[in-house]
Amino acid sequence: MQIAIDAMGGDHAPESNVEGALSAATEWKDTQIVLVGDEAKLAPLLKNKPSNVTVRHASEVIGPDEEPVKAVRRKKDSSMVVAGRMVKEGEAEAMISAGNTGALMTTGLLVVGRMQGIERPALAPMIPTLDDVGVLALDLGANMDAEPQHLAQYALMGSIYRSKMHGISRPRVGLLNVGAEPGKGNKLTKEAYPLLEQLEGIHFVGNVEARDVLTGSCDVLVCDGFAGNILLKSLEGTAGAIFSLLKEQFSKSLKTKLGAAMLMPELRGLKGKMDYKEHGGAPLLGLNGLIVKGHGSSDGNAIKNAVRQARQALSSGLVPSISKEISGK
Amino acid sequence: MQIAIDAMGGDHAPESNVEGALSAATEWKDTQIVLVGDEAKLAPLLKNKPSNVTVRHASEVIGPDEEPVKAVRRKKDSSMVVAGRMVKEGEAEAMISAGNTGALMTTGLLVVGRMQGIERPALAPMIPTLDDVGVLALDLGANMDAEPQHLAQYALMGSIYRSKMHGISRPRVGLLNVGAEPGKGNKLTKEAYPLLEQLEGIHFVGNVEARDVLTGSCDVLVCDGFAGNILLKSLEGTAGAIFSLLKEQFSKSLKTKLGAAMLMPELRGLKGKMDYKEHGGAPLLGLNGLIVKGHGSSDGNAIKNAVRQARQALSSGLVPSISKEISGK
Repeated sequence: MQIAIDAMGGDHAPESNVEGALSAATEWKDTQIVLVGDEAKLAPLLKNKPSNVTVRHASEVIGPDEEPVKAVRRKKDSSMVVAGRMVKEGEAEAMISAGNTGALMTTGLLVVGRMQGIERPALAPMIPTLDDVGVLALDLGANMDAEPQHLAQYALMGSIYRSKMHGISRPRVGLLNVGAEPGKGNKLTKEAYPLLEQLEGIHFVGNVEARDVLTGSCDVLVCDGFAGNILLKSLEGTAGAIFSLLKEQFSKSLKTKLGAAMLMPELRGLKGKMDYKEHGGAPLLGLNGLIVKGHGSSDGNAIKNAVRQARQALSSGLVPSISKEISGK
Repeated sequence: MQIAIDAMGGDHAPESNVEGALSAATEWKDTQIVLVGDEAKLAPLLKNKPSNVTVRHASEVIGPDEEPVKAVRRKKDSSMVVAGRMVKEGEAEAMISAGNTGALMTTGLLVVGRMQGIERPALAPMIPTLDDVGVLALDLGANMDAEPQHLAQYALMGSIYRSKMHGISRPRVGLLNVGAEPGKGNKLTKEAYPLLEQLEGIHFVGNVEARDVLTGSCDVLVCDGFAGNILLKSLEGTAGAIFSLLKEQFSKSLKTKLGAAMLMPELRGLKGKMDYKEHGGAPLLGLNGLIVKGHGSSDGNAIKNAVRQARQALSSGLVPSISKEISGK
């Protein structure tokens, strides 16, 4: 199993990326890890590397604020694009990057390439739920606008992912919407509803309102990238706001400080629970290969977890399964 | 000042509606309140009514689950439609209802009528912010899909509302979007951005991400009804989920129970702060008259507050100001 890691992407690159790679290579001896990036910068971090870690030199880096399409087109020797090319040419079975999200999606489209039959690849992170199981939401930002048939493809890809990766036999698919009844929604969701209802190979459970996402009413949530972003960022913003308010309130007096001290472990646990960044990397589904997007703030542990995720996807045959399901339509 | 109240709409109708009406009439002697609804049901609740409360009989009621357009067309003698007709015919200057939201918006469109020059009226509730000031968000559900020029009209109407109602001299208008940079978004927001930028009479501050809404980065937030619903419901769902998790965690042991007891007043305050239902009724803007939508679960106090809101809107000349601004374009 060969996995390429964009060593230069992310807020803590290359240190965290290398740290995660080394830790993964030590744990999984059957996995070849290729760190893609500036050799001169990587060498000092790799003095005691295990034999299943190698370096592929790439002279350029795509920054977090670069315009995606322009960056991918121009920086052909960037760590991200080189890693993508390795997947495209079969030198690696998967790539992991914590770099510029837009550029990574562009790398997926322009370098790795769309899977035949897929109109729009989708970014699919896990959103935390109260029962700790989580819901796979897609699309979360690869395509801002969507057509009804794209949502149907998201539903298929998401179902296969939950089944292959998490052993859920009939993943419940929900459509993000403004009401539970079938006739509710905007033009997109009204048209997508009957498509999803008739789609073979998925278990459609109907509309899911934004307020019910956290209670785990489905395993796969489909939406366009715009609505998905609003959902996720609103969740993130609200949780962050409440925790900062709690902190402020709890330091008001000696009594509240004492009370807060007693509850600190529970509060910390809760904060982690609501943090979608702790729920692993997000796969880009619908490409001719596997790309896992790590969060920009990924530390060594997050990178290692992304390797774990990629390994599992590869050994479960995720990409060929999606391809078979889509071309079988 | 004459205000019609749909006495039969809402979860606690007619009792709470009557209670709120009586309390408002006692406080504001210059205001004539007309309770619209079933006389036989209202009479027993009105034994000691002040002289500025009257009853207008309406024999029908629109239920919470009725299909809006059908209900408004068929139930011409429903409390909601009769109250709407009173506004249309100048018998009341404003109406308040805590009933079926869709039916109320339909009453606005079909009975009260759109303001000349307005393409789409908008529902505009306040969303809570951390600084307790709140942001007026529109549209929150009157129209699921929107065109760029509708968002521009929402921006104008929302700015006038914040200025007239809350004394904000140059309300900051934000566009709900997936990133801060001007080029971000879906087709709608990409096209709306330059329109808002060029629109005279508003103070456009650019895109606002869902995670920044609660930090009060604008006074007026414009969006289509679908995205607005996702935002608000996600906020509501996340806050609700966190509070129920806190409750669960805090009852785990004697220690956590003690800690929680010490923090109870702060926790309750925080819960109220995050609850958009406590932030007053939502005006329906862009009609030939004033409609205030109370939350379905409105109690007497909420109804009284809606009267306060309607009084302020009437005395500040909100509707004529919007009309002047729109027809002046």
